[in-house]
Amino acid sequence: MNGLHLIADLNRCRCPPQFLIDAADLEAFCVSACTQNRLTVVGRFFHQFTDAAGRPAGVTGAVVLAESHVTIHTWPEINGVSLDVYVCNFSADNSAAARHLFARLIEAFQPEIKAVEELERGRLKSQVLSSAFA
Amino acid sequence: MNGLHLIADLNRCRCPPQFLIDAADLEAFCVSACTQNRLTVVGRFFHQFTDAAGRPAGVTGAVVLAESHVTIHTWPEINGVSLDVYVCNFSADNSAAARHLFARLIEAFQPEIKAVEELERGRLKSQVLSSAFA
Repeated sequence: MNGLHLIADLNRCRCPPQFLIDAADLEAFCVSACTQNRLTVVGRFFHQFTDAAGRPAGVTGAVVLAESHVTIHTWPEINGVSLDVYVCNFSADNSAAARHLFARLIEAFQPEIKAVEELERGRLKSQVLSSAFA
Repeated sequence: MNGLHLIADLNRCRCPPQFLIDAADLEAFCVSACTQNRLTVVGRFFHQFTDAAGRPAGVTGAVVLAESHVTIHTWPEINGVSLDVYVCNFSADNSAAARHLFARLIEAFQPEIKAVEELERGRLKSQVLSSAFA
Protein backbone atom coordinates (compact mmCIF):
# COMPACT_ATOMS: atom_id res chain seq x y z
CA MET A 1 0.00 0.00 0.00
CA ASN A 2 2.97 2.33 -0.34
CA GLY A 3 1.98 5.55 -1.97
CA LEU A 4 2.27 9.31 -1.99
CA HIS A 5 -0.46 11.56 -0.58
CA LEU A 6 -0.17 15.25 -1.45
CA ILE A 7 -2.39 17.64 0.50
CA ALA A 8 -2.96 21.36 -0.03
CA ASP A 9 -5.06 24.09 1.50
CA LEU A 10 -5.12 27.02 -0.89
CA ASN A 11 -6.01 30.53 0.21
CA ARG A 12 -6.76 33.80 -1.56
CA CYS A 13 -7.15 32.09 -4.92
CA ARG A 14 -6.92 34.60 -7.76
CA CYS A 15 -8.44 32.39 -10.46
CA PRO A 16 -11.71 33.63 -12.01
CA PRO A 17 -14.29 33.40 -9.17
CA GLN A 18 -16.58 31.41 -11.48
CA PHE A 19 -14.04 28.55 -11.47
CA LEU A 20 -14.70 27.88 -7.75
CA ILE A 21 -18.48 27.55 -8.17
CA ASP A 22 -18.90 25.58 -11.39
CA ALA A 23 -19.02 21.87 -10.62
CA ALA A 24 -19.15 20.76 -14.26
CA ASP A 25 -16.17 22.91 -15.20
CA LEU A 26 -14.12 21.79 -12.19
CA GLU A 27 -14.97 18.15 -12.86
CA ALA A 28 -13.91 18.39 -16.48
CA PHE A 29 -10.68 20.15 -15.52
CA CYS A 30 -9.76 17.64 -12.81
CA VAL A 31 -10.53 14.61 -14.96
CA SER A 32 -8.56 16.04 -17.86
CA ALA A 33 -5.59 16.87 -15.62
CA CYS A 34 -5.58 13.28 -14.31
CA THR A 35 -5.65 11.70 -17.75
CA GLN A 36 -3.02 14.11 -19.07
CA ASN A 37 -0.78 12.81 -16.29
CA ARG A 38 -1.51 9.23 -17.36
CA LEU A 39 -3.52 8.37 -14.29
CA THR A 40 -6.52 6.10 -14.82
CA VAL A 41 -9.90 7.67 -14.03
CA VAL A 42 -12.42 4.97 -13.13
CA GLY A 43 -15.17 7.37 -11.99
CA ARG A 44 -15.99 10.70 -10.46
CA PHE A 45 -18.68 12.49 -8.50
CA PHE A 46 -18.91 16.27 -8.20
CA HIS A 47 -21.60 18.13 -6.29
CA GLN A 48 -22.74 21.69 -6.87
CA PHE A 49 -23.72 23.59 -3.76
CA THR A 50 -26.21 26.43 -4.14
CA ASP A 51 -26.86 29.44 -1.96
CA ALA A 52 -30.19 30.43 -0.39
CA ALA A 53 -31.25 32.05 -3.66
CA GLY A 54 -30.44 28.90 -5.65
CA ARG A 55 -27.32 30.33 -7.27
CA PRO A 56 -24.19 28.17 -7.67
CA ALA A 57 -21.96 28.24 -4.57
CA GLY A 58 -19.08 25.91 -3.64
CA VAL A 59 -18.18 22.56 -5.13
CA THR A 60 -17.19 19.27 -3.52
CA GLY A 61 -15.97 16.38 -5.58
CA ALA A 62 -13.84 13.30 -6.04
CA VAL A 63 -12.10 11.69 -8.97
CA VAL A 64 -11.66 7.99 -8.26
CA LEU A 65 -8.49 6.63 -9.84
CA ALA A 66 -7.24 3.12 -10.36
CA GLU A 67 -4.20 4.52 -8.54
CA SER A 68 -6.31 5.99 -5.66
CA HIS A 69 -8.00 9.44 -5.75
CA VAL A 70 -8.16 13.18 -6.18
CA THR A 71 -10.55 15.19 -4.02
CA ILE A 72 -11.39 18.86 -4.11
CA HIS A 73 -13.53 21.17 -2.02
CA THR A 74 -13.97 24.87 -2.72
CA TRP A 75 -14.95 27.72 -0.42
CA PRO A 76 -15.77 30.61 -2.73
CA GLU A 77 -16.72 32.75 0.29
CA ILE A 78 -13.03 32.98 1.14
CA ASN A 79 -11.50 32.06 -2.24
CA GLY A 80 -10.26 28.84 -0.70
CA VAL A 81 -9.67 25.33 -2.02
CA SER A 82 -8.68 22.14 -0.27
CA LEU A 83 -7.06 19.54 -2.46
CA ASP A 84 -5.81 15.96 -2.13
CA VAL A 85 -3.91 13.85 -4.64
CA TYR A 86 -3.17 10.32 -3.49
CA VAL A 87 -1.55 7.65 -5.64
CA CYS A 88 -0.51 4.20 -4.60
CA ASN A 89 2.71 2.78 -5.97
CA PHE A 90 1.56 -0.83 -5.91
CA SER A 91 2.25 -1.85 -9.51
CA ALA A 92 4.25 1.21 -10.60
CA ASP A 93 5.79 4.33 -9.09
CA ASN A 94 3.18 7.01 -9.75
CA SER A 95 4.86 9.67 -7.61
CA ALA A 96 6.07 11.80 -10.50
CA ALA A 97 2.61 11.79 -12.10
CA ALA A 98 1.09 12.75 -8.75
CA ARG A 99 3.49 15.64 -8.30
CA HIS A 100 2.86 16.97 -11.79
CA LEU A 101 -0.89 16.68 -11.34
CA PHE A 102 -0.78 18.37 -7.94
CA ALA A 103 1.24 21.28 -9.31
CA ARG A 104 -1.09 21.62 -12.30
CA LEU A 105 -4.18 21.74 -10.10
CA ILE A 106 -2.67 24.27 -7.69
CA GLU A 107 -1.48 26.44 -10.56
CA ALA A 108 -5.02 26.63 -11.93
CA PHE A 109 -6.35 28.20 -8.72
CA GLN A 110 -3.56 30.78 -8.45
CA PRO A 111 -3.42 30.87 -4.64
CA GLU A 112 -1.62 33.69 -2.88
CA ILE A 113 -0.99 31.39 0.05
CA LYS A 114 -0.72 27.62 -0.04
CA ALA A 115 -0.28 25.20 2.82
CA VAL A 116 0.95 21.79 1.78
CA GLU A 117 1.72 18.48 3.36
CA GLU A 118 3.22 15.28 1.96
CA LEU A 119 2.52 11.89 3.46
CA GLU A 120 4.17 8.65 2.48
CA ARG A 121 1.29 6.23 2.83
CA GLY A 122 2.19 2.77 4.00
CA ARG A 123 4.94 4.32 6.11
CA LEU A 124 2.85 6.21 8.63
CA LYS A 125 3.58 5.69 12.29
CA SER A 126 2.28 2.20 12.91
CA GLN A 127 0.55 0.80 15.92
CA VAL A 128 0.16 -2.91 16.60
CA LEU A 129 -3.28 -3.29 18.10
CA SER A 130 -3.45 -4.97 21.45
CA SER A 131 -6.52 -6.85 20.27
CA ALA A 132 -4.21 -8.77 17.97
CA PHE A 133 -2.83 -10.45 21.04
CA ALA A 134 -5.94 -10.55 23.16
CA MET B 1 -11.51 25.79 5.63
CA ASN B 2 -10.61 24.51 9.06
CA GLY B 3 -11.29 20.83 9.36
CA LEU B 4 -10.08 17.48 10.57
CA HIS B 5 -8.49 14.92 8.25
CA LEU B 6 -8.09 11.41 9.67
CA ILE B 7 -5.87 9.03 7.73
CA ALA B 8 -5.29 5.31 8.27
CA ASP B 9 -3.34 2.55 6.62
CA LEU B 10 -4.67 -0.77 7.89
CA ASN B 11 -2.67 -3.98 7.68
CA ARG B 12 -3.43 -7.66 8.24
CA CYS B 13 -7.17 -7.06 8.29
CA ARG B 14 -9.00 -9.99 9.82
CA CYS B 15 -12.47 -9.16 8.51
CA PRO B 16 -14.06 -11.70 6.16
CA PRO B 17 -11.89 -11.60 2.98
CA GLN B 18 -15.03 -11.07 0.91
CA PHE B 19 -15.51 -7.65 2.55
CA LEU B 20 -12.37 -6.31 0.84
CA ILE B 21 -13.45 -7.29 -2.66
CA ASP B 22 -17.16 -6.45 -2.76
CA ALA B 23 -17.62 -2.89 -4.02
CA ALA B 24 -21.39 -2.84 -3.52
CA ASP B 25 -21.11 -4.10 0.05
CA LEU B 26 -18.32 -1.67 0.94
CA GLU B 27 -20.23 1.22 -0.63
CA ALA B 28 -23.38 0.41 1.33
CA PHE B 29 -21.41 0.07 4.55
CA CYS B 30 -19.51 3.34 4.11
CA VAL B 31 -22.60 5.33 3.15
CA SER B 32 -24.55 3.89 6.07
CA ALA B 33 -21.73 4.65 8.51
CA CYS B 34 -21.62 8.27 7.28
CA THR B 35 -25.34 8.82 7.67
CA GLN B 36 -25.39 7.10 11.06
CA ASN B 37 -22.85 9.70 12.14
CA ARG B 38 -25.09 12.48 10.80
CA LEU B 39 -22.81 13.41 7.96
CA THR B 40 -24.49 14.41 4.70
CA VAL B 41 -23.82 12.12 1.76
CA VAL B 42 -24.24 14.00 -1.52
CA GLY B 43 -22.85 11.24 -3.75
CA ARG B 44 -20.50 8.33 -4.05
CA PHE B 45 -18.53 6.35 -6.60
CA PHE B 46 -17.10 2.88 -5.94
CA HIS B 47 -15.16 0.82 -8.46
CA GLN B 48 -14.77 -2.95 -8.47
CA PHE B 49 -11.41 -4.21 -9.66
CA THR B 50 -11.28 -7.69 -11.17
CA ASP B 51 -8.39 -10.09 -11.55
CA ALA B 52 -7.16 -11.65 -14.78
CA ALA B 53 -9.88 -14.30 -14.56
CA GLY B 54 -12.61 -11.66 -14.13
CA ARG B 55 -13.14 -12.40 -10.45
CA PRO B 56 -13.70 -9.54 -7.97
CA ALA B 57 -10.45 -8.12 -6.63
CA GLY B 58 -9.83 -4.85 -4.76
CA VAL B 59 -12.14 -1.87 -4.40
CA THR B 60 -11.51 1.85 -4.71
CA GLY B 61 -14.15 4.37 -3.80
CA ALA B 62 -15.21 7.73 -2.48
CA VAL B 63 -18.18 9.02 -0.54
CA VAL B 64 -18.60 12.72 -1.24
CA LEU B 65 -19.98 14.56 1.76
CA ALA B 66 -21.39 18.04 2.17
CA GLU B 67 -18.75 18.17 4.92
CA SER B 68 -15.94 16.89 2.60
CA HIS B 69 -15.22 13.19 1.92
CA VAL B 70 -14.46 9.60 2.84
CA THR B 71 -12.18 7.56 0.58
CA ILE B 72 -11.26 3.93 0.76
CA HIS B 73 -8.92 1.66 -1.18
CA THR B 74 -8.48 -2.04 -0.48
CA TRP B 75 -5.59 -4.38 -1.24
CA PRO B 76 -6.97 -7.89 -0.69
CA GLU B 77 -3.62 -9.36 -1.78
CA ILE B 78 -2.16 -8.19 1.52
CA ASN B 79 -5.35 -7.73 3.55
CA GLY B 80 -4.74 -3.99 3.51
CA VAL B 81 -6.98 -0.94 3.48
CA SER B 82 -6.20 2.73 3.17
CA LEU B 83 -8.80 5.06 4.56
CA ASP B 84 -9.40 8.82 4.74
CA VAL B 85 -12.11 10.72 6.60
CA TYR B 86 -12.03 14.48 6.11
CA VAL B 87 -14.62 16.87 7.48
CA CYS B 88 -14.57 20.63 7.33
CA ASN B 89 -15.78 22.59 10.31
CA PHE B 90 -17.06 25.54 8.32
CA SER B 91 -20.63 25.77 9.58
CA ALA B 92 -20.38 23.33 12.50
CA ASP B 93 -17.71 21.34 14.34
CA ASN B 94 -17.92 17.90 12.76
CA SER B 95 -14.80 16.56 14.47
CA ALA B 96 -16.65 14.24 16.86
CA ALA B 97 -18.68 12.76 14.02
CA ALA B 98 -15.51 12.25 12.00
CA ARG B 99 -13.79 10.48 14.89
CA HIS B 100 -16.75 8.18 15.49
CA LEU B 101 -17.01 7.39 11.80
CA PHE B 102 -13.27 6.74 11.50
CA ALA B 103 -13.33 4.37 14.47
CA ARG B 104 -16.38 2.56 13.10
CA LEU B 105 -14.78 2.03 9.70
CA ILE B 106 -11.50 0.81 11.17
CA GLU B 107 -13.31 -1.54 13.53
CA ALA B 108 -15.09 -3.18 10.61
CA PHE B 109 -11.82 -4.21 8.98
CA GLN B 110 -10.30 -5.63 12.18
CA PRO B 111 -6.69 -4.71 11.39
CA GLU B 112 -3.87 -6.28 13.36
CA ILE B 113 -1.75 -3.24 12.62
CA LYS B 114 -2.95 0.26 11.95
CA ALA B 115 -0.98 3.37 11.05
CA VAL B 116 -2.84 6.61 11.59
CA GLU B 117 -2.27 10.29 11.07
CA GLU B 118 -4.34 13.32 12.01
CA LEU B 119 -4.12 16.59 10.13
CA GLU B 120 -5.79 19.81 11.08
CA ARG B 121 -6.70 21.21 7.68
CA GLY B 122 -6.54 24.96 7.39
CA ARG B 123 -3.62 24.91 9.80
CA LEU B 124 -1.02 23.15 7.70
CA LYS B 125 2.38 24.74 7.33
CA SER B 126 1.68 27.71 5.08
CA GLN B 127 3.75 29.20 2.37
CA VAL B 128 3.15 32.65 0.90
CA LEU B 129 3.84 32.29 -2.80
CA SER B 130 6.42 34.61 -4.26
CA SER B 131 4.25 34.96 -7.33
CA ALA B 132 1.80 36.91 -5.18
CA PHE B 133 4.35 39.69 -5.11
CA ALA B 134 5.80 39.27 -8.60
